[in-house]
Amino acid sequence: VIACAPFPIRGRRLLLLAEGSFCAADAKTAVCLAMYRPGDVVAVLDSTRAGRRVGEVLGFGGDAPIVASIDDALRARPEIAVVGTAPIGGGLVEPDRSLVARCLEAGLDVVSGMHAFVGDDPELAALAAASGARVWDVRRVTEARAVSDGRGCRTGAGVVLTVGSDCGVGKMTTTVELERAAAQAGMRAAWAATGQTGMILRERGIAVDRVVADFLGGAAEALVNLEGQGVEIVFVEGQGSITHPGYAGVTLGLMYGCMPDAMVLAHEPGRPRYKRLGHDLPELRDLIELYESLMRPWKPARVAALALNTVALSEPDARAAIEAAERATGLPATDVVRAGCARILPAIRDAVRR
Amino acid sequence: VIACAPFPIRGRRLLLLAEGSFCAADAKTAVCLAMYRPGDVVAVLDSTRAGRRVGEVLGFGGDAPIVASIDDALRARPEIAVVGTAPIGGGLVEPDRSLVARCLEAGLDVVSGMHAFVGDDPELAALAAASGARVWDVRRVTEARAVSDGRGCRTGAGVVLTVGSDCGVGKMTTTVELERAAAQAGMRAAWAATGQTGMILRERGIAVDRVVADFLGGAAEALVNLEGQGVEIVFVEGQGSITHPGYAGVTLGLMYGCMPDAMVLAHEPGRPRYKRLGHDLPELRDLIELYESLMRPWKPARVAALALNTVALSEPDARAAIEAAERATGLPATDVVRAGCARILPAIRDAVRR
Repeated sequence: VIACAPFPIRGRRLLLLAEGSFCAADAKTAVCLAMYRPGDVVAVLDSTRAGRRVGEVLGFGGDAPIVASIDDALRARPEIAVVGTAPIGGGLVEPDRSLVARCLEAGLDVVSGMHAFVGDDPELAALAAASGARVWDVRRVTEARAVSDGRGCRTGAGVVLTVGSDCGVGKMTTTVELERAAAQAGMRAAWAATGQTGMILRERGIAVDRVVADFLGGAAEALVNLEGQGVEIVFVEGQGSITHPGYAGVTLGLMYGCMPDAMVLAHEPGRPRYKRLGHDLPELRDLIELYESLMRPWKPARVAALALNTVALSEPDARAAIEAAERATGLPATDVVRAGCARILPAIRDAVRR
Repeated sequence: VIACAPFPIRGRRLLLLAEGSFCAADAKTAVCLAMYRPGDVVAVLDSTRAGRRVGEVLGFGGDAPIVASIDDALRARPEIAVVGTAPIGGGLVEPDRSLVARCLEAGLDVVSGMHAFVGDDPELAALAAASGARVWDVRRVTEARAVSDGRGCRTGAGVVLTVGSDCGVGKMTTTVELERAAAQAGMRAAWAATGQTGMILRERGIAVDRVVADFLGGAAEALVNLEGQGVEIVFVEGQGSITHPGYAGVTLGLMYGCMPDAMVLAHEPGRPRYKRLGHDLPELRDLIELYESLMRPWKPARVAALALNTVALSEPDARAAIEAAERATGLPATDVVRAGCARILPAIRDAVRR
């Protein structure tokens, strides 16, 4: 039931497809690969930003060129094209579909996290067959037919789930950074990828939002039992938010499938409303109570720390936002990218060990 | 996106397949059809109870014979065979698969709510094609690709969602009975079927547990906007329970998709633990608070009443259980089957109108 990349991704030459959208708000997958695989990215396709470099546009991510066309991109000799956008509903729409077609024609392997599968599109599949290009439809789920029974992780590893106040607040980044920090602190640690972007980094996982709803918890349970093998702590990438009308079902199914010992709440200070919905976000304290009260019938899992995404704030404003959140909640807080995990890791470790 | 029965069911001669399991705990779909379509059921297949009558075994449901074999069943001249069991995981396993094969061979239309589709089984599909039998795979979901945005029902109808303390506590029955009682009280009322059994009764609906998790809320939203047309109140069949490790994701996705104005909590007094899980159920008051606090960020939807399933209790014990639940929660309570809806309908109507 765990999906694995059918070809290696790490260490190979990546072209990121992000036409018209190469910024953190619109091209989550592309931006994330630029952040975590800057040495692998050889070109980004976005004609609206062509001529600039990745680092110039994002403030991080290396100096690969941003180009206007597939022909320009091919000059950088990419081996894999990654669909870098994450539209609501996950359709493979224009211009992405045509760009993917061109890449397959040119023999590039294609990685796509869309709900609409490249491999199921007869025209695209024929192009791949003709050129020998391989396709990883990251969200394709197979054999997921288990219903979760609430037993969670049975490997002996402590489970930490990243939860959020909304979509796109940094749950995946928080998960990756916490795993790295825990390993650096000498813990045997692993992380479990539950969404398409995380899966591309990890080269395996389960796109839990793609699983048939009845089997979501069972899929999460299988995943945490795989990633929890041989480690003392496993950080699970969360999805959505428990009060998000579009995704809360996925959030809760994932919670009950992996049955965390502790949670970390990711949030973007200064974002007062749900992304795209224009409705006020709940107060952090109410959110924390909601997450904890849903876990209470099963185990006393606490929200142990806050991971604040302050990318849009100045350094002093970020510091002030972190301090304000700590005062409001009584929990340690950090921006894991800007300030590292040192401030929150001990509280997380303690919460897991209790 | 709404599934509709491809042939009429109501008023036709039904054979219920419930081999080895014709009781309320194991054959939910069969028992429910016996309850609501006693005049349509012409035979029930269960060799372990053969020779008895439906009413003898269940205490309701008419006097159709329970038979030991398909040959015996065919003597009752059924037109439609309904797979009457609801196994966890929804596989079409033996003996059900062989029984379905025999029915298709005999030219009976087949209705199945399993996750494993009859129509996708090459051998069964061939039998159907050969005899001209038609198949309704009730859980098949098509074109569900919408993400819910939290707007719920926009037809002007008030939405009442039946929620539960566990699976199999009577959410569907409560929904059906409330709709009937509301109509009898002069309200323009409808109900929305969200699970396979309800869909067979209603001849349409969406099996929300079968929808890809990302699109569950969107599917529920579409359904409530269909069933809410031209009525003042729509009762939505709930699924699972908000603290059930296997199904809570479905429960919450459905809540946020239909955005109820009020909820009715179904519960079986005297069931201290989750069915099949052996873990204590939460207290009713904690459950009510959980359901209401999850709705609070979106609308002030209250749990307005309790629907208690007292089928396993004596009359005096049932009365005592209902009174105890009312005292513990401060809400009006009833057993909708045993005592009707009169005691709770006014509170529900008031909660919707507020």
